[in-house]
Amino acid sequence: MSSVITKDDFFALVNEIQSSPYYRQPLAFAIARVDRGQKDPSKILQATFPFINWEENYASAAIFQKALQESGCLIPLDESEVVFDVNRNFVAEAISYCTPWLDEAVGEAHKNVQVMKYLRDLPEEELANFRVVFLFEDAKPKSVEAVYLKLYALSQGKAPLRSLNLDGAFGVLPNVAWEGRKPYELEWLRENELRLKMEGNYPNIDAVDKFPRYLQHVIPAENTRILDAAKVRMGAQLAPGTTVMPGASYVNFNAGTLGPCMVEGRISSSAVVGKGSDIGGGASILGVLSGTSGNPITIGENCLLGANSVTGIPLGDGCIVDAGIAVLEGTKFFIAPEEFKKIKEANPDWDAQYKELFKGIELAGLSGIHFRQDSTSGQMKAFRSCKEVKLNEELH
Amino acid sequence: MSSVITKDDFFALVNEIQSSPYYRQPLAFAIARVDRGQKDPSKILQATFPFINWEENYASAAIFQKALQESGCLIPLDESEVVFDVNRNFVAEAISYCTPWLDEAVGEAHKNVQVMKYLRDLPEEELANFRVVFLFEDAKPKSVEAVYLKLYALSQGKAPLRSLNLDGAFGVLPNVAWEGRKPYELEWLRENELRLKMEGNYPNIDAVDKFPRYLQHVIPAENTRILDAAKVRMGAQLAPGTTVMPGASYVNFNAGTLGPCMVEGRISSSAVVGKGSDIGGGASILGVLSGTSGNPITIGENCLLGANSVTGIPLGDGCIVDAGIAVLEGTKFFIAPEEFKKIKEANPDWDAQYKELFKGIELAGLSGIHFRQDSTSGQMKAFRSCKEVKLNEELH
Amino acid sequence: MSSVITKDDFFALVNEIQSSPYYRQPLAFAIARVDRGQKDPSKILQATFPFINWEENYASAAIFQKALQESGCLIPLDESEVVFDVNRNFVAEAISYCTPWLDEAVGEAHKNVQVMKYLRDLPEEELANFRVVFLFEDAKPKSVEAVYLKLYALSQGKAPLRSLNLDGAFGVLPNVAWEGRKPYELEWLRENELRLKMEGNYPNIDAVDKFPRYLQHVIPAENTRILDAAKVRMGAQLAPGTTVMPGASYVNFNAGTLGPCMVEGRISSSAVVGKGSDIGGGASILGVLSGTSGNPITIGENCLLGANSVTGIPLGDGCIVDAGIAVLEGTKFFIAPEEFKKIKEANPDWDAQYKELFKGIELAGLSGIHFRQDSTSGQMKAFRSCKEVKLNEELH
Repeated sequence: MSSVITKDDFFALVNEIQSSPYYRQPLAFAIARVDRGQKDPSKILQATFPFINWEENYASAAIFQKALQESGCLIPLDESEVVFDVNRNFVAEAISYCTPWLDEAVGEAHKNVQVMKYLRDLPEEELANFRVVFLFEDAKPKSVEAVYLKLYALSQGKAPLRSLNLDGAFGVLPNVAWEGRKPYELEWLRENELRLKMEGNYPNIDAVDKFPRYLQHVIPAENTRILDAAKVRMGAQLAPGTTVMPGASYVNFNAGTLGPCMVEGRISSSAVVGKGSDIGGGASILGVLSGTSGNPITIGENCLLGANSVTGIPLGDGCIVDAGIAVLEGTKFFIAPEEFKKIKEANPDWDAQYKELFKGIELAGLSGIHFRQDSTSGQMKAFRSCKEVKLNEELH
Repeated sequence: MSSVITKDDFFALVNEIQSSPYYRQPLAFAIARVDRGQKDPSKILQATFPFINWEENYASAAIFQKALQESGCLIPLDESEVVFDVNRNFVAEAISYCTPWLDEAVGEAHKNVQVMKYLRDLPEEELANFRVVFLFEDAKPKSVEAVYLKLYALSQGKAPLRSLNLDGAFGVLPNVAWEGRKPYELEWLRENELRLKMEGNYPNIDAVDKFPRYLQHVIPAENTRILDAAKVRMGAQLAPGTTVMPGASYVNFNAGTLGPCMVEGRISSSAVVGKGSDIGGGASILGVLSGTSGNPITIGENCLLGANSVTGIPLGDGCIVDAGIAVLEGTKFFIAPEEFKKIKEANPDWDAQYKELFKGIELAGLSGIHFRQDSTSGQMKAFRSCKEVKLNEELH
Repeated sequence: MSSVITKDDFFALVNEIQSSPYYRQPLAFAIARVDRGQKDPSKILQATFPFINWEENYASAAIFQKALQESGCLIPLDESEVVFDVNRNFVAEAISYCTPWLDEAVGEAHKNVQVMKYLRDLPEEELANFRVVFLFEDAKPKSVEAVYLKLYALSQGKAPLRSLNLDGAFGVLPNVAWEGRKPYELEWLRENELRLKMEGNYPNIDAVDKFPRYLQHVIPAENTRILDAAKVRMGAQLAPGTTVMPGASYVNFNAGTLGPCMVEGRISSSAVVGKGSDIGGGASILGVLSGTSGNPITIGENCLLGANSVTGIPLGDGCIVDAGIAVLEGTKFFIAPEEFKKIKEANPDWDAQYKELFKGIELAGLSGIHFRQDSTSGQMKAFRSCKEVKLNEELH
C-alpha cells in the first residue's frame, strides 16, 4: 500500500493516479448495496446507492480505481461501464489512501470516505452485498447497477430529464416481486410457494415490476409531497414543491416536473412539466411509449390541464386544456380571426398564416392558448387564454 | 389530592370544578399518543387518539382540567386551544378523582378512565409519548394535536363535513415520510440516508405527506369498504355502506359521503355526496382547492356520475351525468321546451324562465336532470332524467 | 389403517375407494391454511391454498376422502361443497396411504403429498389453521374456502374467466381490515382500538375489503407486471405478458386479459380483453356490476382504447376508441357509405343494412372499427380502422 499520511500525500497520489495509464475519468461512479437473487445469487435484483458521484469527485474516482487495480480488478479500457464485487483488499487499499480524511468524514463531508469506513467495519460475509460501479460514458446501460445509477442521477436531479441513454434498460432489469424494499425472484417464489404458504410466511407483495418506486431510494425535498409511493417510479424527477395526489396520477421514469406543480394526472415516460402547472385529476399527458408519434411532450409553465383531459402535443406557457377534452396531433381546432391575431402576438415566432382550422400538431409548443370544445356546437376551438393559471398555495 | 371514594364524591367534585374560575367548557378534548421528530423531539409528527371527546363527557373534562391545574399546567383563559405534555402528577391526580369508576372502566364504558388507567401503568419514560389537548372553540387550529382532533371528529362522524375551521392546517402539519403508521422527518432521513442504506435498514416509505391516511386512524363501519388505504385521506368522512374502489378514486379530507355510495372517482376537498349515489370510474367532482370558483359542491342522493365525467356544479337528487362529459359552471346546455317544463315540475322552487341555453351554474342544485352530449350534433343537453339510479346491492 | 407399501398397493386402494359408495368425484379440492377471526375463531377470514386441484389429481381426492371417512368426517352425498377441519387422524391416515410417494414428493412432484408431509410435522395446535375443502359441482359457493378456491382457479388460469358460479360470494366473504396479508375482524379492531393505540401497536391497515389482492395469493408469470398490488383483485386473471400500470388502472375479480396487454385503465368485473390490446390511461371498460345493461364486455385482440375513453359495448379485433370519448350502447355513430362497405368486408357475418346512424349496441362485437368524435362538428363517427395497433415491445 502507498503511504498516505498527510493531505498533501493524498493529492500527490491522486495526481499520480490520474496520469497513470489505467485511470479513466468516469461520467459517474458509486458503491451499491445490492440485493441478490434468492435462487441465483449471481443475479442482481436491486442496487441501492448510499451516495452517487455524477461528473464530480474525481479524486475519489482515482483512489477507487487504484484500489481496484491493486486488489486485482482491472479497469477495462474500452467498456462504457464496469462493475466489480467489493472485496476486503479493495476496501483496505482505499481506506489506506484516505487516512487524512477519516476523522473529517462525517455528516455532509467526504461521503465516499464515509462509505469506505462502513465497508471497513463490516464482517467479511457482508461485503458480498456491495459492488462498485463506474460509468465511463453515457452508452446503453449493460448492468443493473448502471441502470440504477442513471435512475438515481435523474431522480436526484443530477442529470436533466431525457438527457441519459436508457436504451435497453427494460432488458437489463429483472422482473421481481417487491415486498417493501425487498425484491424476490419470481422463480424462487414459485419454487417455495407451497412451503411459504404452509408455514404462514408467504410474503406480502406490493408490486411486481422491473423498476423500484421513487420513494424506495429517493428522499424528496422538504416541500414535496407524494401521497402514494406507487404513483412515482424510480427515475422520475420531481422539482421541490411538487405534489402528487393519489387519485389517477402517475409519474413514469424519465419524466416529471421542473418546478412546483400539482399532479393529479399522468405524466408518461419522457413527458416534462414546467413550474406552476396543474395537471388535473385524471389528466393524461401522452408519452413516447404510449400514444405520441415518438416526440416527447413538454408542458410549459403555468398551464392547466383540466380534469380528465388528454394532451398529445407539447404546450407552451399559460395554456389551458379544458376538462374532459382531448388535444391530439390530428385534432382540428377552429380559430377565429381575432383570436389568431392574439395568439400570434403572444407567440411572435410562430410562423403561420390564418386559416379556420388548425391541427393540434400545428399548435404544438405555442403559449397562451385555451383549448375548448364548444358546448353548443361540439366544435373544438382554440383561443387566446385570458385566465392566469395559479396554483393553490397550499397545493391541497 | 382530593378524596374521591364514592360516585357522589365524584359528582360533587365535578360540580365544584365546573363552577371554579379556571374551568373552561371545551368544544373537544382528548389524550393523544404522539410521534415525535427523530431529529427534533419537540416537533410533533402525528397524534393518535385512542378516544376523542367532542361536545360530550364534560365531567371528564372537569377532572382533567383540575388534574392539570394541580400538576402545574395552567389552563389559559384566552386561547382557543391548549396542549400539555402528560406527566406523572397529572395522571396520579386524575386517577385519584376517578376511583369510583376504575373497576367499571372496561369495554365500552368510561373510555377516558380507561385511558388514564393505561397511563397509570406506564413506565415513566413512556409518558413522554402522550399529550393532552383541549379545544375551547372552533378557531384556526394552531397545533398538530388540534388539527388531528378535528380530522378525527370529521372522520368519526362526530362533526359534519365542512362544519369545522381548518384554516391554516397545511401550515401546522409537518410534511413527513410515512413508513406504515410511522412518520419520519425528511431532514432526519436525509442526515441518516447513507448509514441506513449501508446497513440495509433504509425504511420502506409509503407516502410523503402532511396528512396521514384515514385507515391509519379510523375503523370504518362494518359494511364500508376501502380497497386501497392510499385513496382516503384522514379527515374524510365515509358513511356506512360506502365502497371506495382502487382505480382512479380518491376522497380528500373534509369531503365524503352521507350514505351508502359507490366511489370509483374523485371526491375533492369539501365535496359531499348524498346517499345512493354512484361516482363512476374516473369521475371527478371538483373541489374548492382545485377547479371550482370556491363554492363547495354537493351531490344529491341517487345520482350517477358516469365514468370519466367531470362535475363542477352542485347537483340535486337523481341526476345523471353521462360518461365522459364535463358539466362546468360555464358549460351551455340546450333544454327543449317540454324538458324545461318537466324539470320545473321536479323542482318547484326553481325560479327560471324558459330559454334555449342554460349555463351549468344556472342548473346548480336542481334534481332529476340528465346531462348529455348529443352524439349526432356534439351539443350539450340537459333533460329530465327518466332512469332511476340504483346502486348494485353488493356494490362490487 | 390400510397397509400401502408399494405403488401397486396405492393404485389398488385408489380403485377401491373410487368404487366405494362414499366416494364423490370432485370438481376441485385443496388444503387451505386459514386465518380465523380474532374475536370469533370459528369465523374464517381468509383461505390460503399452497396448491389447488381443479378437475385433476383424482387419486389424491380418493385418498383424502378415505382419510376423512376414517377420521370421522362424512362426505355428504347431496351438498355441492364440504369443508372440514384438518385433524391429526386425517393426516395420519392420508400419510399412511401415501407411503410409496413420500420420498419422491419434492419440488414439482406430488404436491398433495408434500402438503400432507408438512401437516404431519406440525405441532397439534397448529393443525387448527388448516382445513380441507371439496367442491363437487359449480354451485353457488357457501363457504369462504369455496369462494377462495374458485378465485384461485380463475387467477391461476385453471378455469376460464366468467366460467364459474360466484353468485352470493359477496355475502359469504366477511369484510375485513387487511394489514398486509393479515386480515382483522373490524369488530375486534373496534373493541381493541383503545388498547392498541395506547400501546402504540395499532396495525397499519392497507385496505378494508371482502376480497384479498391478487398478489397476496398468486405469483404472476415471469413477464407479467403489476406495479401496484392494490390494482388487481383476487379472482382476476392476467395472461403472461400483461402489464398493469399504477395510474388509474384496475382489474376486478372475474375479469382480465387473454394475452399480453397493456393495462392503464379499468377492466371491470366480467370484462375480458384479448391479446395485444392496449387499455389506455384512465380508459374504462364497463362491467356487469357498473354501467352495462348486464352483458359482460369482451374486447378483442389488438384493440386500442384511448386515454380516458369509455367503452360500454363489446369490441371485435383491431378496434380503436379515440382518447376521451364514450362508446355506449345508445351512442349514435354516423357511418359514411364507403366506410359501411369496408366495415362489412371486415365483418362478413355482420348482417346489417346501410343507414347513416348506428347505435353503439348495433356495432357490438365488430372488428376493425375506429370510433371518433369529429373535432369540427362534434358528431360521433365510426369508420374502418386503418392503423394497426401494436403494443410497445417493452410495455413500459
